Amino acid sequence: MPDKLLLLIHCPDREGLVASVTSVIRRFHGNVVDLDQHVDTERGVFFMRVAWNPATDDEAAIAQFQQAFAAEVAKPCDMTWRLERASRRTRMALFVSRYSHCLYDILARWESGEWDVAIPLIISNHRELAPVAQRHGVRFEYVPVTPGTKAEAERRQLDLLREAGVDLVVLARYMQIVSPAFIAAMGGNVINIHHSFLPAFAGGQPYHAASARGVKIIGATSHYVTADLDAGPIIAQDVVTVSHKHSVEDMIRKGRDLEKIVLARAVYAHLMHQILVYDNRTVVFE
Amino acid sequence: MPDKLLLLIHCPDREGLVASVTSVIRRFHGNVVDLDQHVDTERGVFFMRVAWNPATDDEAAIAQFQQAFAAEVAKPCDMTWRLERASRRTRMALFVSRYSHCLYDILARWESGEWDVAIPLIISNHRELAPVAQRHGVRFEYVPVTPGTKAEAERRQLDLLREAGVDLVVLARYMQIVSPAFIAAMGGNVINIHHSFLPAFAGGQPYHAASARGVKIIGATSHYVTADLDAGPIIAQDVVTVSHKHSVEDMIRKGRDLEKIVLARAVYAHLMHQILVYDNRTVVFE
Amino acid sequence: MPDKLLLLIHCPDREGLVASVTSVIRRFHGNVVDLDQHVDTERGVFFMRVAWNPATDDEAAIAQFQQAFAAEVAKPCDMTWRLERASRRTRMALFVSRYSHCLYDILARWESGEWDVAIPLIISNHRELAPVAQRHGVRFEYVPVTPGTKAEAERRQLDLLREAGVDLVVLARYMQIVSPAFIAAMGGNVINIHHSFLPAFAGGQPYHAASARGVKIIGATSHYVTADLDAGPIIAQDVVTVSHKHSVEDMIRKGRDLEKIVLARAVYAHLMHQILVYDNRTVVFE
Amino acid sequence: MPDKLLLLIHCPDREGLVASVTSVIRRFHGNVVDLDQHVDTERGVFFMRVAWNPATDDEAAIAQFQQAFAAEVAKPCDMTWRLERASRRTRMALFVSRYSHCLYDILARWESGEWDVAIPLIISNHRELAPVAQRHGVRFEYVPVTPGTKAEAERRQLDLLREAGVDLVVLARYMQIVSPAFIAAMGGNVINIHHSFLPAFAGGQPYHAASARGVKIIGATSHYVTADLDAGPIIAQDVVTVSHKHSVEDMIRKGRDLEKIVLARAVYAHLMHQILVYDNRTVVFE
Repeated sequence: MPDKLLLLIHCPDREGLVASVTSVIRRFHGNVVDLDQHVDTERGVFFMRVAWNPATDDEAAIAQFQQAFAAEVAKPCDMTWRLERASRRTRMALFVSRYSHCLYDILARWESGEWDVAIPLIISNHRELAPVAQRHGVRFEYVPVTPGTKAEAERRQLDLLREAGVDLVVLARYMQIVSPAFIAAMGGNVINIHHSFLPAFAGGQPYHAASARGVKIIGATSHYVTADLDAGPIIAQDVVTVSHKHSVEDMIRKGRDLEKIVLARAVYAHLMHQILVYDNRTVVFE
Repeated sequence: MPDKLLLLIHCPDREGLVASVTSVIRRFHGNVVDLDQHVDTERGVFFMRVAWNPATDDEAAIAQFQQAFAAEVAKPCDMTWRLERASRRTRMALFVSRYSHCLYDILARWESGEWDVAIPLIISNHRELAPVAQRHGVRFEYVPVTPGTKAEAERRQLDLLREAGVDLVVLARYMQIVSPAFIAAMGGNVINIHHSFLPAFAGGQPYHAASARGVKIIGATSHYVTADLDAGPIIAQDVVTVSHKHSVEDMIRKGRDLEKIVLARAVYAHLMHQILVYDNRTVVFE
Repeated sequence: MPDKLLLLIHCPDREGLVASVTSVIRRFHGNVVDLDQHVDTERGVFFMRVAWNPATDDEAAIAQFQQAFAAEVAKPCDMTWRLERASRRTRMALFVSRYSHCLYDILARWESGEWDVAIPLIISNHRELAPVAQRHGVRFEYVPVTPGTKAEAERRQLDLLREAGVDLVVLARYMQIVSPAFIAAMGGNVINIHHSFLPAFAGGQPYHAASARGVKIIGATSHYVTADLDAGPIIAQDVVTVSHKHSVEDMIRKGRDLEKIVLARAVYAHLMHQILVYDNRTVVFE
Repeated sequence: MPDKLLLLIHCPDREGLVASVTSVIRRFHGNVVDLDQHVDTERGVFFMRVAWNPATDDEAAIAQFQQAFAAEVAKPCDMTWRLERASRRTRMALFVSRYSHCLYDILARWESGEWDVAIPLIISNHRELAPVAQRHGVRFEYVPVTPGTKAEAERRQLDLLREAGVDLVVLARYMQIVSPAFIAAMGGNVINIHHSFLPAFAGGQPYHAASARGVKIIGATSHYVTADLDAGPIIAQDVVTVSHKHSVEDMIRKGRDLEKIVLARAVYAHLMHQILVYDNRTVVFE
């Protein structure tokens, strides 16, 4: 059975886009198994994700399809697009500091086979979680970061990432801000978990801020990292109710469960190539 | 601007269905504004909802499209399908007994213009809610139901519904079981709200049963009515948390808010032609 | 059966407060049916709500209890406290503008007997909703507000409220800011519904802001009104999920259901004397 | 600072119970830091959990308190009660089969110090998860179970539990039914996670049943195990929305996250001595 192919597209909306795309797939004897499309009528943008079983795994045939699609549809329609192979295993690096719950959760999903992903590298600005990495047989690199050495530290991080062939960086409660240069070097493939319902309580110590404000609900937000701190495209959010009974410590405890689940949902959507980004927002075809 | 058209389809899955459907629409110069499709891979069934702006409102042109679609696509692909006009106003009757919260909620949505629907008729087996109907200027018919007069009562109800040109019956906490014959006469267009998370606590007094079982969550379920009581295709469900603090009365109180919101979501989805039923389950293209 | 009494207390935390309070109730032969207490350990504040069936409804006996409680417990412990009779019916005024969903919802709760409350007055800065008030037999007063006449308008509003013996003002999507003087005149008993998950998207057009930010969850917040706009003590919040599929209009539609339910929860908690305010936060003893 | 004490009580409701209990604590110079009480008015049962800082850690003083409390309050009021020390570490055994997500999650909570608990033993009817236990340095015992050897297997399990001084057994997706004798031997301290919103879909393959029924919400339920399968007192429940898009496999995937979080909430409430069981229901004083 040939490997499933995925096409992710966005372009200015116009008539007949679905028929144009599916016609080319059909001509190459592909069988569409999943098709999601969405039109943002306000912005006039068309989004599409289509998955199909191609007639063959033959590289030449796929290249031919890409050429035909580019020339006949993508170019005339001014499309931003990419083709993914469903079975290609994403190589993911984890950035951590001292909090371990997201790290443990991701390692368990990987190790148990829940996620079909490679985790060649864990980078941290602290040494505390090295034993966790070692226990799971994942390379752990300690890269300390100080205001003075930040640029150098990022160069070191990028060297390690390149060397390990990493496609995706997951900031699993990594308590450092990454630079625009770093994000650009990773092609924007950097996912963060923020421990609040963004845009409420952006910045540091959101649970303390939530407690001081007396909210009845706390949240967590996973988003792509952009130059503007905590303002990148949101991928997933969830919330849990709290009351006057919950101290800041209770919120932190309840929040941990939220953070790990929300981060996992976002990473999973990325791994499954379900996310399109446009205008600092995401379209997630679940 | 011509009236938007909607096509709802299900059929055995096969290659190229999306392209086939959209090609016909395109040939008639329709501009697709919304397309949702889903393949139930387990059952091998293809579902699709497509909304488009046709080139013209002309009845003959629409009839031509229907003919072409039926002959070229629907018949060869063994499709179950229907064509709806987005602007046609559904005529809805409300069946009630003594509880008023769902009735009030629906009347408010109608009266405020939130729902573009006609409500020509309210039928009840009790007289208590007649003043509510009168205040809103809706005809109220008292049709008492006893075990001995049930068949006769349903004949009377169906006469009233036919006379009022009703397409959809909403059982807004109507405390009587309707017969298979009644459901058939309405073409299955009968929506009920059950005050539990079905299939838990089907039947009477679900809040009492939930309280006795000591659940931590209660729910409400809106579904199409079928011959098998509380077992019809589920359209919408939602839940709310409870604790040991909540008595049966508290559950009933909290449940009322849930019931009216869940029923409204289900009715709205029906009014917007978002629902396809297959194998006692619903596909809701929100 | 004598009318249930409720005591609401907050004071600096110290040893033996529960025993002190319940001992006095016991000495007067009261039977405690509900007791909630909470200690905010961070702030060192003790909160308590106790409901009991007194031995008698006799006014003199209740006055005696109050005297004894004040002298023996409340004063020595530096308590802020109030005594409420469970059966006293709150007199509530509704302030509205053009949106009707919260108004309809509250009127239905009142009319159906779900809430045991009096609604003697609806005030609006627009005339649109007068027919709704009239249909329900509630006095409707049109009080236009312009920047130049705001102070005068509030004087007129307060005159109407005083005349109608109103204890609680509910801003049911009232699109005007009320002044600190107005809030003070109502003793802080002014509840608002804000159509976002505060503190995210405070201020005007929160759904537009939420859509622009690309959030995956929208919320509503009901709070007591304070001089600082949208920053008063939060009583109730709830959320609903959204996705890229939802336009601003969809969010507004989904938000309406949230707004009316969240506002109703907050008002109900106020009517049941379940809320204590301290340090711009609420303790809600549900 | 002396170790915090916890008293958990239920008894027939009567006047003055809170004052009676807190008076004894006060006489022994205890300082109440947390008090929750609840009256089930339907059943006429009083529930209470009170936490206090005693004057001293001295064993003789605590024994004296217990004696006084028993004689003066507990006995006359016909109380079922227990006294717990907040700092005593519960010894917990995990029973697993082949699914690892709950096991990983609990081990991470323990190892990271999120839970102050001892995990001396993991028992399984399969060998697959032995490496996980070994990696975390927890003793793993393989105890195969067949219909013919079930009684013998349970004897072996109980020997292992006794030897390890275990107070609590957590069935972390253990795919075997435990006998009433086993439950009795553990004093009822056996917590299970069922992968549905009980009582819907009790028994095997609940996700398949949920998918077949076409529900729009799936759930997980953690409960104490009783002789009656899946019918024991519910401790915690939560749900997640699904749609027609989700296959059984998707439900299983989404359900895993739910199961581990709900099980963890239930175990945490048990560890914190927040749960009282009465009449096959739980009072959870969060």
